[in-house]
Amino acid sequence: MGIVVILGSGVMGSALAAPLADNGHEVRLVGTHLDREIVEAIRATGMHPGLARTLPAGVRAYQLEDAGEAFAEAEIVVSAVNSVGVEWAGERLAELLRPGQLVLAIAKGVRTEDNGDLRILPDVLAGAVATELRERVGWGAIVGPSIAGEVAARRTSCVVFCGRDEAVVDRLAEAFRTGWYHVWTSLDFVGCEICAAAKNCYALGIGFAEGELEAQGERDSPDRAHDYEAALFAQSAVEIRRWAQLCGGDPATASWLPGVGDLYVTSTGGRNVRVGHLLGQGLSFIEAAARLGHPTLEGAAAIRVFGDALGRLTERGVVGEHELPLMRHLHEVVALERPLEMPWGRFLGGEPARQAARP
Amino acid sequence: MGIVVILGSGVMGSALAAPLADNGHEVRLVGTHLDREIVEAIRATGMHPGLARTLPAGVRAYQLEDAGEAFAEAEIVVSAVNSVGVEWAGERLAELLRPGQLVLAIAKGVRTEDNGDLRILPDVLAGAVATELRERVGWGAIVGPSIAGEVAARRTSCVVFCGRDEAVVDRLAEAFRTGWYHVWTSLDFVGCEICAAAKNCYALGIGFAEGELEAQGERDSPDRAHDYEAALFAQSAVEIRRWAQLCGGDPATASWLPGVGDLYVTSTGGRNVRVGHLLGQGLSFIEAAARLGHPTLEGAAAIRVFGDALGRLTERGVVGEHELPLMRHLHEVVALERPLEMPWGRFLGGEPARQAARP
Repeated sequence: MGIVVILGSGVMGSALAAPLADNGHEVRLVGTHLDREIVEAIRATGMHPGLARTLPAGVRAYQLEDAGEAFAEAEIVVSAVNSVGVEWAGERLAELLRPGQLVLAIAKGVRTEDNGDLRILPDVLAGAVATELRERVGWGAIVGPSIAGEVAARRTSCVVFCGRDEAVVDRLAEAFRTGWYHVWTSLDFVGCEICAAAKNCYALGIGFAEGELEAQGERDSPDRAHDYEAALFAQSAVEIRRWAQLCGGDPATASWLPGVGDLYVTSTGGRNVRVGHLLGQGLSFIEAAARLGHPTLEGAAAIRVFGDALGRLTERGVVGEHELPLMRHLHEVVALERPLEMPWGRFLGGEPARQAARP
Repeated sequence: MGIVVILGSGVMGSALAAPLADNGHEVRLVGTHLDREIVEAIRATGMHPGLARTLPAGVRAYQLEDAGEAFAEAEIVVSAVNSVGVEWAGERLAELLRPGQLVLAIAKGVRTEDNGDLRILPDVLAGAVATELRERVGWGAIVGPSIAGEVAARRTSCVVFCGRDEAVVDRLAEAFRTGWYHVWTSLDFVGCEICAAAKNCYALGIGFAEGELEAQGERDSPDRAHDYEAALFAQSAVEIRRWAQLCGGDPATASWLPGVGDLYVTSTGGRNVRVGHLLGQGLSFIEAAARLGHPTLEGAAAIRVFGDALGRLTERGVVGEHELPLMRHLHEVVALERPLEMPWGRFLGGEPARQAARP
């Protein structure tokens, strides 16, 4: 049993203390500069305010200035800063990491190169670390359906640890795997991470269904809009598969936990779905974000990145202009403030025109 | 615009009057011997009692003894009898069909041959018709996410019409396709039908999650069991893909509307999920079926068929004994009255043992 340090004391990082503590690891939770009050609360009460749950006995919380002490002797470092803070986290890791440590990243998102190519966040994180050190550290990430509150409550969760080095990924999986926190592994680092980032975009779209129903005055009808959601789910699954392939990953990764599994859980609720709900009601994205109090909307942020990349990849001829019609429309609605008008007929390779289908 | 006759006046068959009427077809709804009161109610009030909705103007309801009159001059015949009644429906079609008519089947399920091979229901239906007539009739089926009440309410639905003859499938799709009832087509008849039948089995399993939570006294916890559902969803998607392949279909069919799309919508509720919920609480299948008043449980019936087939296919060496672990356990719980104990570690090719994973 080793020492595991978690950088970032938000809900997901803190929830991971549960399987780690169950496996007998010493868990050190280091808050960022934004987490000072969380760290103080944990020190004072043992309870994580965001999770509204007492952390496992023995978890020690550190303020950022004590990160050096926390990182000492640690075998595993969890980078639990969200997608907005990945560059910041990379700079901290550049200072704090030591050769031989293993890094496990949990932020979901992507960055775009100037030519439209997408870059996965663990590579952005590692990119901030000097080459010599970077090559002496192991890099991996968690993907798959996993809600922080459920992990903290020790509910059954099935996730995938991914990376490029099998020994690293296996060791990380072994450190976390319990009888309720099930861990599979994948060496398709790019495919896994692209699925994780893209699913936040598509889950936002799932929210449109209920919102449109309300806009049509059908809020109280017993007949919901599950067919609409399911059609978007299927189209999303097809597009996530295509994104994985486009970025050099394995399209098959979209077919299990990292793809349809994570899309399913993200579609059950959360901020991405709520903003979609408001867009479905007819609000513009700016209005919807304001209504929710301008929280961090990772799905909307990812739509901007994927949508921008899609434009550039289409210009370069890497993607056909009729491909990925749902992501194109999500981008139109979220980034370009265009009205929601779902292009059903362009889905799934295109629904045949009625006349053209006549035998 | 032609004449379309629908045999079976249950909710799904009757709901299909909506897109047909929108396209200007004359719709004739023929009740089975079990549907007498439904037909009388429609004739008296224009309203379908199961849908609690007025049918489109011009839809005419017929009692079974007038089926001959209804079938005359019809271009398209919808077989809207449920999976239990497919053999009965086949016998009626054998008497009523005329050369040149097109049949569109909507029942979801499978039958097993003695050796464990599975047979799709449209083939069971067609098998009741004499060869000479059968070959002069076109055969197709509807798959994909489609809830009767939503179709009747003209909610956006995206479905797939499948069959072996492209001209037949295209003509059927053209007759039904509207601006809200979107129809794609597939010539993977076997894959589509296997997906449609298997998803009912797996949706039952999704219900376990909430039931187990309640059994653990966590009914009122804000932390649900969506991770559990999502893990089962992902495993189900993997197994549905394998079933399609095993039966000679295209595994890719599991990746869009007929597979993950239909699984998604079926997992949002309905009797299959409710019986799973009770099993999750700890009831035996017999107790759960009694609690629900012994309704037709198509998911449970399909689990018996797939599970029986799986045993025989495993004996023959067609399937490995570690394959399809979720279907095996669904069969144990539903058909063999064994306690629910989800074999997470056997999913997805097997979670590595903790020790074995050490590099």
